[in-house]
Amino acid sequence: MIKNLAALDNGPVTVSGWVDTVRDQKKVQFVVLRDESGAVQLVNPRTTDAEGVVVADEPASTISTLSQGSFVTVTGELKHDERVKLGGIEIKLATLEVVTVAIPETPIAADSSLDKRLDWRFLDLRQPKANLIFRLQTTFEHAMRTYWIDNDFIELHTPKLMASASESRAELFEVEYFDTKAYLAQSPQFFKQMAQAAGFGKIFEVGPAFRADPSFTSRHSTEFTSVDSEISWIDSHEDVMQLHEELLVAGFTAVKEKHGEEVLALFGVEVTVPSTPFPRIPLAEAKEIVKSRGYEVPRDDDDMDPEGERQIAAYVLETFGHEFVFLTDYASSIRPFYHMRHENDASITKSYDLIFNGTEISTGAQREHRIDILVEQAKEKGVDPEEIEGYLDFFRYGVPSHGGFGMGLARVLMLMLHQASIREVTYLFRGPTRLEP
Amino acid sequence: MIKNLAALDNGPVTVSGWVDTVRDQKKVQFVVLRDESGAVQLVNPRTTDAEGVVVADEPASTISTLSQGSFVTVTGELKHDERVKLGGIEIKLATLEVVTVAIPETPIAADSSLDKRLDWRFLDLRQPKANLIFRLQTTFEHAMRTYWIDNDFIELHTPKLMASASESRAELFEVEYFDTKAYLAQSPQFFKQMAQAAGFGKIFEVGPAFRADPSFTSRHSTEFTSVDSEISWIDSHEDVMQLHEELLVAGFTAVKEKHGEEVLALFGVEVTVPSTPFPRIPLAEAKEIVKSRGYEVPRDDDDMDPEGERQIAAYVLETFGHEFVFLTDYASSIRPFYHMRHENDASITKSYDLIFNGTEISTGAQREHRIDILVEQAKEKGVDPEEIEGYLDFFRYGVPSHGGFGMGLARVLMLMLHQASIREVTYLFRGPTRLEP
Repeated sequence: MIKNLAALDNGPVTVSGWVDTVRDQKKVQFVVLRDESGAVQLVNPRTTDAEGVVVADEPASTISTLSQGSFVTVTGELKHDERVKLGGIEIKLATLEVVTVAIPETPIAADSSLDKRLDWRFLDLRQPKANLIFRLQTTFEHAMRTYWIDNDFIELHTPKLMASASESRAELFEVEYFDTKAYLAQSPQFFKQMAQAAGFGKIFEVGPAFRADPSFTSRHSTEFTSVDSEISWIDSHEDVMQLHEELLVAGFTAVKEKHGEEVLALFGVEVTVPSTPFPRIPLAEAKEIVKSRGYEVPRDDDDMDPEGERQIAAYVLETFGHEFVFLTDYASSIRPFYHMRHENDASITKSYDLIFNGTEISTGAQREHRIDILVEQAKEKGVDPEEIEGYLDFFRYGVPSHGGFGMGLARVLMLMLHQASIREVTYLFRGPTRLEP
Repeated sequence: MIKNLAALDNGPVTVSGWVDTVRDQKKVQFVVLRDESGAVQLVNPRTTDAEGVVVADEPASTISTLSQGSFVTVTGELKHDERVKLGGIEIKLATLEVVTVAIPETPIAADSSLDKRLDWRFLDLRQPKANLIFRLQTTFEHAMRTYWIDNDFIELHTPKLMASASESRAELFEVEYFDTKAYLAQSPQFFKQMAQAAGFGKIFEVGPAFRADPSFTSRHSTEFTSVDSEISWIDSHEDVMQLHEELLVAGFTAVKEKHGEEVLALFGVEVTVPSTPFPRIPLAEAKEIVKSRGYEVPRDDDDMDPEGERQIAAYVLETFGHEFVFLTDYASSIRPFYHMRHENDASITKSYDLIFNGTEISTGAQREHRIDILVEQAKEKGVDPEEIEGYLDFFRYGVPSHGGFGMGLARVLMLMLHQASIREVTYLFRGPTRLEP
């Protein structure tokens, strides 16, 4: 890999990658070769005959015809030279083998629209910034996984094909399933709670979730990677928030350590490992704070809106110097039936949203595990207990107190890297009008 | 957690779990309490009054009414006592708090049919064997992931919603997608190859794949967890097989280390870390060997059948003492259009199936990356190049040589633990007539 060249001594090397640029000059040819780890300059002084006339030998002739994007394998002499801007090394070419020739037209350029770039996503992803996003995602996810493993969590792969809705019946994709219909899981909610009744204790899952959401905002997609965790024997949603904090600290620490410098260089963003505990503000109080800053949330229900989330995040950053804030105790009226309510005030739930740099990335809660109350809350929300009979059974044969959260992976990356759209940090974005490539 | 009790000194402890059994005797009560990590005996000597008559005090009265499966939190004195069969420890009860009462009827018993147990999967999963399966799966997967991370692989989350088929058009689930149709990914094949054109180099994904397969065998399901990896710059499928071996060795080593004793105790199976290289046998030769053992594969095409796989595995175990075998060089006639063919014999492909304990767990291959040949092979297989135009574009703008494999996670577990059906090792099995729970 190219990133390993700098550590080698001068001498013969073999490198593979794709052609980034070619400068085909009269006396010398330069090629910038790129792979997933970096870029290196190849140099090929042209051969001249006795009269000083340039000879059309190899690899010179091939280089003259090289199209950008072609994949090649080269051999040559590695030479350390401080004057070379690109990493202080270059390779004097001996041989160059073309593995695949790229057609010379490039359908996208640096200034192409996002939509056009997504049409040609495989070319768009060759940019160092895009490549870094997915290496960073890998690191972030593995750090969370290592935390889970070190703490005895069990990993789940819950089914995405369901017989009924896991959340509301809105935004549900329907699948032709032999002689019947199935639905795509909107979240692993029911099945991760099932693991609690099954005595699994602490579980996690990272997998796709599907929402038939017709909106075109920069932070929604019809398919997204959901990071879920659920734990038994909690006293309140506070235990879930602590788990959530520890996971994010593990993820951000690993990202900063492994990619911090590169993120600063390519995105101009300093990765900050959040301090714990994150600030916690009850939603009602947050709305008061936002109001005192001159913004009245224009909603009839008790919920926040995106501008309100930005305002409270700005307040938290100014006041506590923190990029994260837990908004807690959401009104029961705007939370699902399975959120537990406070003992002393049933109008609010033991739940939270986590806001990062002004946008919601996650919802968590203690779940109601008492079957009588759960059935009551379902009815109150217009959920027919008969439709969720299988789910309700989980609570009839014994279940511990439990809670957990679901978090959108792409949202975390988008906000961490100050990107304007989730589409930049999703490998292949899916929206109402985008199913390809 | 209960597994941590044995390491503690005698003294006060608090433990949570569910009630496994209650023995309510005249002078003393015993409860076996279980959590995801193990089981412990609780003991409660009954109080007697001055006349020696048993008094109905707490927690005695509550214990007398405890139903199996109820979740409780107890406090008491931990006491090490070699005479106690269950781990040499017991807890003398002080308090017992019932968190949820289980209804006393248990719908399944140890001898219930598999189908009935799947109906009540959350109760079925409380068995120590089932719990071990998913802790073992967690360990196995994390060991593979750690291998990938240590070797600079990028993790992908490819979309499961597609505009067209990724494999054959048979066995395809159709989704209502706003004003059009989408299909569920049968594999991440196209998208992991896209990562090669994108210059990602080495990638992996663990995620769901969907097959509308109407069969009811013990090794098929309509949704399964697929383990995929794909690497650039390979010389042949041999490079893919080496990667595959190293991953399995990493996984089996971790499983043996962490769960080997428990697997032996609960399943009667010795986990064996496979030695490398695994035996490799070209398919044509394997069919000859099977024939010489007296079994003629009853197929018109060039493929193996399940009995043939069992026979060749038996031969390999007898001859090499190995549980794994790579069958290589499958006929081009029975492989997808994207498998590369041998330079000197286009009738065979640079591909393999991996057989473990007599059943196929994986298919791998070098991919054809030369666009002209790829288009020819597609046409030959009756795949209309226009239908896969987006996929073919990946090869027109430069792409390295590459290859990879897809492996069914549940199959590995089934065969590792000598289970008769994939349903035992899948958290929630999905088949043509099973969408619930």
